[in-house]
Amino acid sequence: MSESRYAYQGLDPLLHAPARLSIVTALYAHRSGLTFVEVRDLCELSDGNLSRHLRKLEQEEVVRSTKGFVGRTPQTKIEMTVAGRIRFERYVEQLRVIVEHDVPAGATIGGGPLGLRAAD
Amino acid sequence: MSESRYAYQGLDPLLHAPARLSIVTALYAHRSGLTFVEVRDLCELSDGNLSRHLRKLEQEEVVRSTKGFVGRTPQTKIEMTVAGRIRFERYVEQLRVIVEHDVPAGATIGGGPLGLRAAD
Repeated sequence: MSESRYAYQGLDPLLHAPARLSIVTALYAHRSGLTFVEVRDLCELSDGNLSRHLRKLEQEEVVRSTKGFVGRTPQTKIEMTVAGRIRFERYVEQLRVIVEHDVPAGATIGGGPLGLRAAD
Repeated sequence: MSESRYAYQGLDPLLHAPARLSIVTALYAHRSGLTFVEVRDLCELSDGNLSRHLRKLEQEEVVRSTKGFVGRTPQTKIEMTVAGRIRFERYVEQLRVIVEHDVPAGATIGGGPLGLRAAD
Protein backbone atom coordinates (compact mmCIF):
# COMPACT_ATOMS: atom_id res chain seq x y z
CA MET A 1 0.00 0.00 0.00
CA SER A 2 1.27 3.46 -0.83
CA GLU A 3 2.16 5.99 1.84
CA SER A 4 -0.43 8.67 2.66
CA ARG A 5 -2.95 6.95 0.45
CA TYR A 6 -5.75 7.99 2.83
CA ALA A 7 -4.78 11.58 3.58
CA TYR A 8 -8.01 13.50 3.07
CA GLN A 9 -7.08 16.67 4.91
CA GLY A 10 -7.08 18.44 1.56
CA LEU A 11 -10.87 18.15 1.25
CA ASP A 12 -12.06 21.73 0.70
CA PRO A 13 -13.51 22.79 4.08
CA LEU A 14 -15.71 25.43 2.43
CA LEU A 15 -17.53 22.75 0.43
CA HIS A 16 -17.20 19.82 2.86
CA ALA A 17 -19.45 21.30 5.55
CA PRO A 18 -22.78 19.47 5.12
CA ALA A 19 -24.99 22.59 4.86
CA ARG A 20 -22.78 24.20 2.22
CA LEU A 21 -22.39 20.87 0.42
CA SER A 22 -26.19 20.78 0.18
CA ILE A 23 -26.34 24.31 -1.20
CA VAL A 24 -23.66 23.93 -3.84
CA THR A 25 -24.88 20.51 -4.98
CA ALA A 26 -28.38 21.92 -5.49
CA LEU A 27 -27.02 24.94 -7.36
CA TYR A 28 -24.62 22.86 -9.42
CA ALA A 29 -27.52 20.71 -10.61
CA HIS A 30 -29.60 23.77 -11.51
CA ARG A 31 -27.41 25.71 -13.88
CA SER A 32 -29.87 28.51 -14.49
CA GLY A 33 -29.92 29.25 -10.77
CA LEU A 34 -32.46 28.92 -7.98
CA THR A 35 -34.34 31.38 -5.83
CA PHE A 36 -33.47 31.79 -2.17
CA VAL A 37 -36.70 30.02 -1.25
CA GLU A 38 -36.00 27.09 -3.58
CA VAL A 39 -32.52 26.56 -2.12
CA ARG A 40 -33.88 26.86 1.40
CA ASP A 41 -36.53 24.20 0.79
CA LEU A 42 -34.35 21.84 -1.24
CA CYS A 43 -31.66 21.94 1.47
CA GLU A 44 -33.96 22.09 4.50
CA LEU A 45 -32.18 25.12 5.93
CA SER A 46 -33.59 27.97 7.95
CA ASP A 47 -33.52 31.46 6.40
CA GLY A 48 -30.81 32.55 8.82
CA ASN A 49 -28.68 29.50 8.27
CA LEU A 50 -28.94 29.74 4.50
CA SER A 51 -28.08 33.47 4.55
CA ARG A 52 -25.02 32.81 6.66
CA HIS A 53 -23.69 30.05 4.43
CA LEU A 54 -24.48 31.99 1.24
CA ARG A 55 -22.52 34.96 2.56
CA LYS A 56 -19.51 32.72 3.06
CA LEU A 57 -19.90 31.14 -0.40
CA GLU A 58 -20.25 34.59 -1.98
CA GLN A 59 -17.16 35.88 -0.19
CA GLU A 60 -15.21 33.03 -1.75
CA GLU A 61 -16.86 33.72 -5.12
CA VAL A 62 -18.35 30.25 -5.38
CA VAL A 63 -21.89 31.60 -5.80
CA ARG A 64 -23.35 34.96 -6.72
CA SER A 65 -26.79 36.30 -5.97
CA THR A 66 -28.87 38.86 -7.80
CA LYS A 67 -31.74 40.76 -6.24
CA GLY A 68 -34.68 41.40 -8.49
CA PHE A 69 -38.45 41.54 -8.59
CA VAL A 70 -41.16 39.23 -9.82
CA GLY A 71 -44.02 41.67 -10.23
CA ARG A 72 -43.78 43.59 -6.97
CA THR A 73 -42.28 40.75 -4.97
CA PRO A 74 -38.55 40.92 -4.33
CA GLN A 75 -36.76 37.75 -5.31
CA THR A 76 -33.15 36.73 -4.83
CA LYS A 77 -31.72 34.52 -7.54
CA ILE A 78 -28.62 32.49 -6.67
CA GLU A 79 -26.29 30.73 -9.06
CA MET A 80 -22.82 29.25 -9.06
CA THR A 81 -19.93 31.07 -10.65
CA VAL A 82 -17.72 29.32 -13.20
CA ALA A 83 -14.89 29.30 -10.65
CA GLY A 84 -17.30 27.81 -8.12
CA ARG A 85 -18.32 25.03 -10.50
CA ILE A 86 -14.68 24.16 -11.15
CA ARG A 87 -13.89 24.20 -7.43
CA PHE A 88 -16.89 21.98 -6.70
CA GLU A 89 -15.93 19.52 -9.46
CA ARG A 90 -12.47 19.16 -7.92
CA TYR A 91 -14.01 18.47 -4.53
CA VAL A 92 -16.49 15.93 -5.93
CA GLU A 93 -13.67 14.21 -7.80
CA GLN A 94 -11.93 13.66 -4.45
CA LEU A 95 -15.11 12.23 -2.93
CA ARG A 96 -15.42 9.94 -5.94
CA VAL A 97 -11.91 8.60 -5.37
CA ILE A 98 -12.88 7.81 -1.78
CA VAL A 99 -16.19 6.04 -2.44
CA GLU A 100 -15.27 4.38 -5.73
CA HIS A 101 -11.63 3.54 -5.15
CA ASP A 102 -10.48 3.75 -1.54
CA VAL A 103 -13.49 2.01 0.00
CA PRO A 104 -13.38 -1.59 -1.18
CA ALA A 105 -16.61 -2.61 -2.84
CA GLY A 106 -18.46 -5.88 -2.29
CA ALA A 107 -18.77 -8.18 0.69
CA THR A 108 -18.26 -6.70 4.12
CA ILE A 109 -18.88 -7.93 7.61
CA GLY A 110 -21.18 -4.97 8.01
CA GLY A 111 -23.74 -6.80 5.92
CA GLY A 112 -25.04 -6.58 2.40
CA PRO A 113 -26.26 -3.65 0.34
CA LEU A 114 -27.93 -1.03 2.47
CA GLY A 115 -29.84 0.91 -0.14
CA LEU A 116 -30.02 3.96 2.10
CA ARG A 117 -30.69 7.33 0.54
CA ALA A 118 -29.31 10.56 1.92
CA ALA A 119 -32.76 12.08 1.79
CA ASP A 120 -34.67 9.17 3.36
CA MET B 1 -37.64 18.25 -8.20
CA SER B 2 -38.52 16.78 -4.84
CA GLU B 3 -38.43 18.83 -1.65
CA SER B 4 -35.35 18.55 0.56
CA ARG B 5 -33.62 16.47 -2.04
CA TYR B 6 -30.28 18.04 -1.10
CA ALA B 7 -30.52 18.01 2.70
CA TYR B 8 -27.19 16.53 3.79
CA GLN B 9 -27.23 17.65 7.39
CA GLY B 10 -27.61 14.00 8.36
CA LEU B 11 -24.05 13.19 7.27
CA ASP B 12 -22.47 11.58 10.33
CA PRO B 13 -20.22 14.31 11.80
CA LEU B 14 -18.03 11.75 13.54
CA LEU B 15 -17.06 10.23 10.18
CA HIS B 16 -17.35 13.32 7.97
CA ALA B 17 -14.43 15.19 9.55
CA PRO B 18 -11.56 14.71 7.05
CA ALA B 19 -8.99 13.35 9.52
CA ARG B 20 -11.41 10.76 10.92
CA LEU B 21 -12.65 9.94 7.42
CA SER B 22 -9.03 9.15 6.52
CA ILE B 23 -8.61 6.94 9.57
CA VAL B 24 -11.78 4.90 9.16
CA THR B 25 -11.34 4.49 5.40
CA ALA B 26 -7.85 3.11 5.95
CA LEU B 27 -9.06 0.79 8.72
CA TYR B 28 -12.11 -0.31 6.74
CA ALA B 29 -9.88 -1.35 3.85
CA HIS B 30 -7.56 -3.30 6.17
CA ARG B 31 -9.84 -5.71 7.95
CA SER B 32 -7.15 -7.37 10.00
CA GLY B 33 -6.27 -4.00 11.50
CA LEU B 34 -3.31 -1.66 11.30
CA THR B 35 -0.68 -0.51 13.75
CA PHE B 36 -0.74 3.02 15.13
CA VAL B 37 2.29 3.85 12.99
CA GLU B 38 0.70 2.46 9.83
CA VAL B 39 -2.46 4.52 10.32
CA ARG B 40 -0.41 7.61 11.10
CA ASP B 41 1.63 7.28 7.92
CA LEU B 42 -1.26 6.28 5.64
CA CYS B 43 -3.31 9.24 6.86
CA GLU B 44 -0.46 11.74 7.22
CA LEU B 45 -1.44 12.62 10.76
CA SER B 46 0.78 13.62 13.66
CA ASP B 47 0.94 11.28 16.66
CA GLY B 48 -1.04 13.73 18.76
CA ASN B 49 -3.69 14.31 16.15
CA LEU B 50 -4.13 10.60 15.50
CA SER B 51 -4.38 9.85 19.24
CA ARG B 52 -7.02 12.50 19.70
CA HIS B 53 -9.17 11.26 16.81
CA LEU B 54 -8.74 7.61 17.82
CA ARG B 55 -9.92 8.42 21.32
CA LYS B 56 -13.08 9.93 19.89
CA LEU B 57 -13.63 6.96 17.55
CA GLU B 58 -13.08 4.53 20.45
CA GLN B 59 -15.51 6.39 22.67
CA GLU B 60 -18.14 5.91 19.98
CA GLU B 61 -17.11 2.27 19.57
CA VAL B 62 -16.24 2.67 15.91
CA VAL B 63 -12.70 1.39 16.43
CA ARG B 64 -10.94 -0.56 19.14
CA SER B 65 -7.24 -0.73 19.91
CA THR B 66 -5.20 -3.42 21.55
CA LYS B 67 -1.84 -2.82 23.12
CA GLY B 68 0.67 -5.61 22.68
CA PHE B 69 4.31 -6.31 22.04
CA VAL B 70 6.34 -7.35 19.03
CA GLY B 71 9.40 -8.79 20.73
CA ARG B 72 10.11 -6.11 23.31
CA THR B 73 8.63 -3.25 21.31
CA PRO B 74 5.17 -2.10 22.35
CA GLN B 75 2.76 -1.98 19.47
CA THR B 76 -0.81 -0.70 19.32
CA LYS B 77 -3.06 -2.51 16.90
CA ILE B 78 -6.21 -0.72 15.76
CA GLU B 79 -9.21 -2.20 14.02
CA MET B 80 -12.79 -1.29 13.28
CA THR B 81 -15.61 -2.82 15.24
CA VAL B 82 -18.53 -4.48 13.45
CA ALA B 83 -20.77 -1.59 14.53
CA GLY B 84 -18.17 0.82 13.19
CA ARG B 85 -18.10 -0.92 9.83
CA ILE B 86 -21.88 -0.75 9.56
CA ARG B 87 -21.91 2.93 10.58
CA PHE B 88 -19.20 3.70 8.01
CA GLU B 89 -21.06 1.83 5.26
CA ARG B 90 -24.15 3.95 5.91
CA TYR B 91 -22.11 7.10 5.70
CA VAL B 92 -20.38 6.02 2.48
CA GLU B 93 -23.73 5.10 0.98
CA GLN B 94 -24.85 8.70 1.54
CA LEU B 95 -21.70 10.03 -0.13
CA ARG B 96 -22.35 7.68 -3.04
CA VAL B 97 -25.83 9.11 -3.51
CA ILE B 98 -24.31 12.58 -3.68
CA VAL B 99 -21.51 11.87 -6.15
CA GLU B 100 -23.31 9.30 -8.29
CA HIS B 101 -26.84 10.62 -8.24
CA ASP B 102 -27.22 14.20 -7.03
CA VAL B 103 -24.26 15.64 -8.94
CA PRO B 104 -25.18 15.43 -12.63
CA ALA B 105 -22.52 13.58 -14.59
CA GLY B 106 -21.11 14.61 -17.95
CA ALA B 107 -20.65 18.01 -19.54
CA THR B 108 -20.18 20.99 -17.23
CA ILE B 109 -19.07 24.53 -17.82
CA GLY B 110 -16.29 23.86 -15.38
CA GLY B 111 -14.53 21.83 -18.07
CA GLY B 112 -13.86 18.21 -18.85
CA PRO B 113 -12.64 15.36 -16.71
CA LEU B 114 -10.23 16.54 -14.06
CA GLY B 115 -8.56 13.28 -13.18
CA LEU B 116 -7.50 14.62 -9.80
CA ARG B 117 -6.60 12.20 -7.05
CA ALA B 118 -7.26 12.91 -3.42
CA ALA B 119 -3.66 12.08 -2.65
CA ASP B 120 -2.07 14.15 -5.45
